Amino acid sequence: MEQDKRFMALALELARSAHGQTSPNPLVGAVLVSNGAVAGMGAHLRAGEPHAEVHALRMAGEKAAGATLYVTLEPCSHFGKTPPCADAVVAAGIRRAVIATLDPNPLVAGKGVEKLRAAGVEVLVGVGEAEAKRLNEVFFHYITTKRPFVTVKTASTLDGKIASVTGHSRWITGERARAEVHELRRQHDAILVGVGTVLADDPLLTARQGEQLYGRQPVRIVLDSELRTPLAARVIENADAPTWIFTTEAAPPEKRAALAAKGVRLFVASGQISVENVLDTLGECGITSLLVEGGQAVNGAFLQARAIQKIVSYVSLKLIGGSGAPTPFGGPGFATMDQTVRLADATVELLDEQDVRISGYPLWEK
Amino acid sequence: MEQDKRFMALALELARSAHGQTSPNPLVGAVLVSNGAVAGMGAHLRAGEPHAEVHALRMAGEKAAGATLYVTLEPCSHFGKTPPCADAVVAAGIRRAVIATLDPNPLVAGKGVEKLRAAGVEVLVGVGEAEAKRLNEVFFHYITTKRPFVTVKTASTLDGKIASVTGHSRWITGERARAEVHELRRQHDAILVGVGTVLADDPLLTARQGEQLYGRQPVRIVLDSELRTPLAARVIENADAPTWIFTTEAAPPEKRAALAAKGVRLFVASGQISVENVLDTLGECGITSLLVEGGQAVNGAFLQARAIQKIVSYVSLKLIGGSGAPTPFGGPGFATMDQTVRLADATVELLDEQDVRISGYPLWEK
Repeated sequence: MEQDKRFMALALELARSAHGQTSPNPLVGAVLVSNGAVAGMGAHLRAGEPHAEVHALRMAGEKAAGATLYVTLEPCSHFGKTPPCADAVVAAGIRRAVIATLDPNPLVAGKGVEKLRAAGVEVLVGVGEAEAKRLNEVFFHYITTKRPFVTVKTASTLDGKIASVTGHSRWITGERARAEVHELRRQHDAILVGVGTVLADDPLLTARQGEQLYGRQPVRIVLDSELRTPLAARVIENADAPTWIFTTEAAPPEKRAALAAKGVRLFVASGQISVENVLDTLGECGITSLLVEGGQAVNGAFLQARAIQKIVSYVSLKLIGGSGAPTPFGGPGFATMDQTVRLADATVELLDEQDVRISGYPLWEK
Repeated sequence: MEQDKRFMALALELARSAHGQTSPNPLVGAVLVSNGAVAGMGAHLRAGEPHAEVHALRMAGEKAAGATLYVTLEPCSHFGKTPPCADAVVAAGIRRAVIATLDPNPLVAGKGVEKLRAAGVEVLVGVGEAEAKRLNEVFFHYITTKRPFVTVKTASTLDGKIASVTGHSRWITGERARAEVHELRRQHDAILVGVGTVLADDPLLTARQGEQLYGRQPVRIVLDSELRTPLAARVIENADAPTWIFTTEAAPPEKRAALAAKGVRLFVASGQISVENVLDTLGECGITSLLVEGGQAVNGAFLQARAIQKIVSYVSLKLIGGSGAPTPFGGPGFATMDQTVRLADATVELLDEQDVRISGYPLWEK
């Protein structure tokens, strides 16, 4: 059992090595162990390329016969861009398979395991399961809900303000925190703000390292019921990333036309914009991960809709004061302390003696 | 030099061992080293008892002759409750004295060092100075400003709220954080709140371990311009600690008389209550340390007055939301991010996976 955990930890490490390059596929790692020694290793590196098991089997060659396979995700049982891994595992003569977690897709979950067992392979599922699910948190969420995995990022002073009473907010956090936010953007398919943020800060909302654009740019999404986004706003003028705007029929038709002419993709809701509809629509458009960088209204709406999977909160070691200054989450709020949502698996880190990063996963009741 | 640091670290450790029992005296530790070996150690344990150097000299006996003294505070040069330590050090034949920091009292600072040097002792000042000052931060602040050292303690949700929009606040933090607050109270001479907190929460404001009162109880202080504190409030009815109220001439005379009859000590300001006047008065009354547990108005007033020496902020891993819910520091606030006050020497700790404690020292510009 200790040995199973050790080799699965290695497989998880291999999977992690391809972070950010496998989309829309999950991260997967595999290790083959023959007579107590590692005989093969592999990771899925890019969509369309071989799965982790196949790389490991190739490396092991004849040593795969009789070996144990450690793999972070259930081997596939169907033909996709590549043939089913479960067949390859059986064909190679694997005697035992240790699997961290089943395929999250309910249509195929367990089918790979069945195939292995039917062929006489001894199968153990669940070693390193929590870590394997966290590793592919975006993929698992998207597959099972058909909505993007939502991370809300906030930046506030130690006394809970996202701006001064006069609206000043540059900069709350230090350089390292701000660089991390650009890296966060790079890792997401889309970034979302409200029109209030566009009007107040006129942000570019691209992912940059210093002045340099990252190779991959998330879609910029603005929630804007009445299309108050100026045509001269940087998210409209700048062409480094696509911009999509969610609006309503209350928006002036001429403004719609003008924005469309600028290349903006518009989604027009028949009633009010709802968080649920936005997420459904984004999911249909193939957006698997969404970084919300809203002000108190937008973040408050996501909180009220219980539509947050992860929080990344930068708390700067500064006090600003100010009764009525905006806070990270507005909206109606919850009335009592037992109605608040707790974060699980929190991590806390002090950044350059300037800011504290607090991350965690809201525990919504089912 | 490395050796100096090592023995001073030991002296600081000895000083620390008497934490909370030397008031109104500072914590002091001393180590005597003869031929590279520790020959004596001591700490000041209680006011009226021997100073650290004297304990160390006694332990060393004849080995003190020619030895090096490591002491965390400049040896005293005047007769207090005990004879001057500088004389005892000279009389014992100490050859070299390493001192972390000079006496903070400007009237005597440097006089002990002078006495030692005049007698031919080699003196080095400044080894471990920052740590030595931190160790006696309350004592140093009180001696030099004649005002109490002010610590503001706050408890808020991760989104910066000290209560819900409806005013609910029990409990924001978990058991461990709340137990720490009682320990913090025990370490202070007084606790201060505004009348708003008395009216909203009716707190006892005593220092307790579970149901058990700590042996030492801080004075309870309420800022209450119009004497709205009810006669039935727990800070009035409960006799476990003294209660002092700062009020103004606007308060009804009959309410003043009724509170005085209940044993409350009243301080009546001629105009408005100001943070500066409160601190001056408390200093005159011998209050060396003050724990402010105010709501946003009181904390905001201390922030505006730049009258905060330390922040202990408990941030719970919860989101509550709510536009307009109160935050830890209200008041007018600072207008821009470059006017905010930064915290130095911050420490961050995750408590029981429920709360994050962030402590630090506001860096007020001189």
